[in-house]
Amino acid sequence: MNNEYVDMAERLTPDLIRTKVSPVGTVEVIADAEALHGWKVTESGTADQLRARSFSKGDQAIIDFGDHQVGYLTLSLQSVEARADSPVRLKLTFGEMPCEMAENFDEYNGWLDRSWLQDEIINFDTVPGTYTLPRRYTFRYLKIEVVSPARKFKVAFPDMFVTTVTSGDVACVPELPDGLPADLREMDRIAVKTLQDCMQTVFEDGPKRDRRLWIGDLRLQALANYETFNQFDLVKRCLYLFAGLRLEGGQVGACVYERPEPAGDDIYLYDYSLFFISTLHDYYLASQDRETLVRLWPIALEQIHLSLERLDERGIVTDDPSWYCFTDWHEDLNKQTPAHAVLIYGMKNGLALAEELKLDAEAAFIREQITRVTDAAMAYLWDPAQGFFVSGSERQISWASQVWMVLAGVFRRDENAALLDRLFAADPAVRPMTPYMYHHLVEALIVAGRKEKALEQIRAYWGEMVRDGADTFWEVYQPADKKNSPYGSNLINSYCHAWSCTPTYFIRKYFA
Amino acid sequence: MNNEYVDMAERLTPDLIRTKVSPVGTVEVIADAEALHGWKVTESGTADQLRARSFSKGDQAIIDFGDHQVGYLTLSLQSVEARADSPVRLKLTFGEMPCEMAENFDEYNGWLDRSWLQDEIINFDTVPGTYTLPRRYTFRYLKIEVVSPARKFKVAFPDMFVTTVTSGDVACVPELPDGLPADLREMDRIAVKTLQDCMQTVFEDGPKRDRRLWIGDLRLQALANYETFNQFDLVKRCLYLFAGLRLEGGQVGACVYERPEPAGDDIYLYDYSLFFISTLHDYYLASQDRETLVRLWPIALEQIHLSLERLDERGIVTDDPSWYCFTDWHEDLNKQTPAHAVLIYGMKNGLALAEELKLDAEAAFIREQITRVTDAAMAYLWDPAQGFFVSGSERQISWASQVWMVLAGVFRRDENAALLDRLFAADPAVRPMTPYMYHHLVEALIVAGRKEKALEQIRAYWGEMVRDGADTFWEVYQPADKKNSPYGSNLINSYCHAWSCTPTYFIRKYFA
Repeated sequence: MNNEYVDMAERLTPDLIRTKVSPVGTVEVIADAEALHGWKVTESGTADQLRARSFSKGDQAIIDFGDHQVGYLTLSLQSVEARADSPVRLKLTFGEMPCEMAENFDEYNGWLDRSWLQDEIINFDTVPGTYTLPRRYTFRYLKIEVVSPARKFKVAFPDMFVTTVTSGDVACVPELPDGLPADLREMDRIAVKTLQDCMQTVFEDGPKRDRRLWIGDLRLQALANYETFNQFDLVKRCLYLFAGLRLEGGQVGACVYERPEPAGDDIYLYDYSLFFISTLHDYYLASQDRETLVRLWPIALEQIHLSLERLDERGIVTDDPSWYCFTDWHEDLNKQTPAHAVLIYGMKNGLALAEELKLDAEAAFIREQITRVTDAAMAYLWDPAQGFFVSGSERQISWASQVWMVLAGVFRRDENAALLDRLFAADPAVRPMTPYMYHHLVEALIVAGRKEKALEQIRAYWGEMVRDGADTFWEVYQPADKKNSPYGSNLINSYCHAWSCTPTYFIRKYFA
Repeated sequence: MNNEYVDMAERLTPDLIRTKVSPVGTVEVIADAEALHGWKVTESGTADQLRARSFSKGDQAIIDFGDHQVGYLTLSLQSVEARADSPVRLKLTFGEMPCEMAENFDEYNGWLDRSWLQDEIINFDTVPGTYTLPRRYTFRYLKIEVVSPARKFKVAFPDMFVTTVTSGDVACVPELPDGLPADLREMDRIAVKTLQDCMQTVFEDGPKRDRRLWIGDLRLQALANYETFNQFDLVKRCLYLFAGLRLEGGQVGACVYERPEPAGDDIYLYDYSLFFISTLHDYYLASQDRETLVRLWPIALEQIHLSLERLDERGIVTDDPSWYCFTDWHEDLNKQTPAHAVLIYGMKNGLALAEELKLDAEAAFIREQITRVTDAAMAYLWDPAQGFFVSGSERQISWASQVWMVLAGVFRRDENAALLDRLFAADPAVRPMTPYMYHHLVEALIVAGRKEKALEQIRAYWGEMVRDGADTFWEVYQPADKKNSPYGSNLINSYCHAWSCTPTYFIRKYFA
C-alpha cells in the first residue's frame, strides 16, 4: 500500500448530492410467462392511497418509487384505530426489479452470497415515529410486509421517501442536440442515470452489488463520464486508489474496497491490470492533467513490464485454466488471445503516454515490445486459412478474440472491417455475453468504420433492455436467453451496472 | 394533558448510567423435561473461544452475558480466511430466558404482539466493522445465526459487549447487615437487580415488555426504591407524568408512554387510579417532599371523588364483567371486593395526607366516606357464617378479597391474623397468580403480625424462582404450574418485572 497515493485519493473524495424522492404509488407483481423473468408489474394504487391505508399482520404493499434509486429510506410509522402498545415488526425487501418483489429470497441458491439481496426484518419501538434506516439501498420497489401488529392497533405509513445519493451532478450533463432519434435519446437518458447511480465516492460497479471499484468498469465509466458529467476528480481519485493499493508484486489489482479504509482485493486479472494504462491514457486525453500523468506514469509502465513476464518463449501470453483474465462472463471463452490483444492495446496506450512525456527510452522499449507481441500474434494466433484469430490450445474462434484484436489495431482499418464482417457472417458460438463485451464489440465496429452496424448493435442490445423495461442498464443481459445469470439466479444480478452505461458514450461521441 | 405537570416531569428525566458488559462464554440449550419450561442451559465454551471462532452459513452460537442486561449491543465483525466481499447477514435473537433461545419465535401464537420478542435479521455492509445496534435489548442470552457468508470468507466476532443503561445507581444501595441468611441475601440481590434494570427514564414495568410506566408497578417499585436506591426524583417524575396525563374524566390512567412524547394510554383501572393516592402517600412518607404533596394533592383527592362515583346505593363498588380493575392476572377472579378494599385502602392513605396538610374539611369528608364504605363492606361483602369476604354476584371467596380487606384495615390486627389463618387453612381455589398478588399477600401477613408466615411465603415463592434460575424476578410465576402465562406463551412473559422486585423491600424493612 502506497500511502501517498491513497492519501491523495482520500483528499479527492467527493461530496454526495442528496435528493428526496417520494413514492409514485403501489404496484402488484403478477406471474406472466411473456414478461421478463416471468413477472409483470401492474399499478395497484396511488401514493395518496398508500398514505391512507392501514396495515395489520400479514398485510403487504409493494411501493414504486418511479425510477431506480440509490439512497436511504426514511419511513414514518403511525398507529391507527388505537395507540401502538407494542413495537411494529416489518419485513422490508428492496428490489431493482419485479423478480426481487416476487421471488422468495430465502430460496435463493445462487453462487454469490445471499446477503446481496436487500431485505431485513426489523422492529420499530416508537410509534408514531420517523426512522431513517442505516443502510444504503438500491431499488425502485420496496415491499413492506407487516409481521406485527396483529392486535390492538394497525399501522400506517403517512410518509416515506428515499434520500438519494450520487456524486454525479446531472446539471453538468450537456443537452443532447435536437433531431436525435427518440430511441437514442431514451437510451442516453437511461445510460446517464445508470452512470449517475454508480457515481458515489468511487465509480462503483453496481450500487446494489458489489458496490466496489473494479478497473474494468472504471475504464468504461470514465469514458462515459467524459461525455456527460465530466467529473475528472472522481476518475483521478480512482486511479490513485488503484495505484496506491497494488498487489504485492506491483500489479494493479482488479478491484479495491473503500471501507472501512481503502484496501485492495487479492484478485489479479491480466486485462484489468493493463487497463490502468488505458484509463490513465483516456483520463489524460480528456483532462490534460499532466501532473497526474507524471505521478502515475511509473505505475502504468510497471504494468507493461509485469504483463510481459507472462509471455512464453514465442512471445504469446501464457494460457491458464484459472481465472487469470476477465474478458467476459462466458463459461467456454478461452482468454489467451483476448489477453494477448489487451496487452497490445495497453502497450499502445502506454506508448502514447511515453511519447507525450517525451520519455524516449521508454517509448522505444514499448515500441519494440509492441512489434514483438504483434508479430507473435500474427505468427501463432492468426489463422489465415480461416480468416480468424484463434485462442488457446483448442484454437477457439470467439467473438472476443476478433473484437480485441481489432481494438488492438493489429490490422489496418479495412482489414478490421473485413474481419468483423466475416465474424458476423460466421457467427461463432462463443458470443458476447455481457454489456461489457458488447461495448467492445460496438467500439470495434466503430474503429473499423462500421458505424451503422455499431448503431444496429446498440439498438438490438441496449434497445431491447429498454423494451424489457430497464430503468437503468443491466449487468447481465442476453436477448436470446433473458433469464441468464452468471451467478445462478436473476435475483442477484445487478440491474444498474457501470459497464452497461456506455450507450451515452457512443451516442454522444459518435451519433449525436 | 396538563402541560405544567408534564413539563415538571420532563425536567426530572434522569441521566442514565452506562456500563460495558462482556460475554462470559457460550452455552447450549437442551431439551430437558425436568428443567423450567423444558430447557436446560449448559456451558459450551469460553469467551476466548467465542472470539477465536469463525462462522459460516448455518453456524450459530448462543452467547451468555452472565446476568440479565438492559442495553445496547456493540458487535465487531471480522472476516476470516479471506477479505469479506459481501455483506454479512445475521439473525440476532435476544432472550432473558433459555426458552427464548430454544423455541421458534415465528411459531409464537400468544395474545400479545410477536414484536415483543426480540429478534431481527440484519445485513452488515462493512466488514471488518463495529456496529452498535439502535434498539435497546433486554437479555442475558444472544443467539447469533449466520445466514451469510456462505462462500469466500468466514466471519468472526472478535469483540462484542452490551452497554447497559439504568438510572439506578447501585452505589446508593445500603449494605445488608451481617448475619442475614444467605437465601435472603441472594433474593435481595436479585430483587435489587430487577429494580435496577427496570429503572430507566421512568420506572418501567419490564424492560423487555412493555417498557412502560404502569402505576400498579410504580407503587411497588417506589416502596422497594425507598429501601434501596432512594431515588426520590424518579418517583416524583412518574407521579407528575400520571398527574399530567389523566384521562378525560380526570382519572389517573393505568399507564403512560414516554415516547415519542409523554402521553397517557386509554386504559382505566379502578384500583390503579386509587394507587396514585397511595404512591403519593408513600413518597411523602419517604421523602418529606411537602411541595410535591401540596401540588399533587388535588389529583389525589380527585381520585377519591371519582372512585366514589362507582358505588351503588348500598355503598358497594359496582361490579362489571369488563376489565375495570386489575387486582391480579386470574381468569376467574371476581374484582368487586378487592376493588372495594382498595377504595378503603386508598382513602385511608388520602386521609393521612389530608391530615398532614391540615385540610380539615377534606379530612372530615374522607373520614365519613371511609366509615360509609367500610360499613357497607361489613354489611354486604363480609360473610360471617363462612368467615370470609365474598365478591360478586356469585359470592366468590378468593385470596385477593381477604388479602385486600386485611390491607384495607377493616378489621383489627388480631382479627386480620385470624382471617388469614382461616384463608391458609381453607385454601380457596382462586389463589394469587402473580408476584404482584403475592406481594400483597406477604404485606397482609406482615400487617396482621404473621411475619414468620410472610417469610415462609417469600421463600416458597421468590425462593423457588431463585431455585429455577432467576437472574431477575419474573412477571409471572406459578410454582405449581411453571409454564403458566397469562398471554398464551412463556416466550412473551417478562422475566425482569417491576412488580416482582419487592423481596428487597420486605427483607430490608422487616427482616434485616
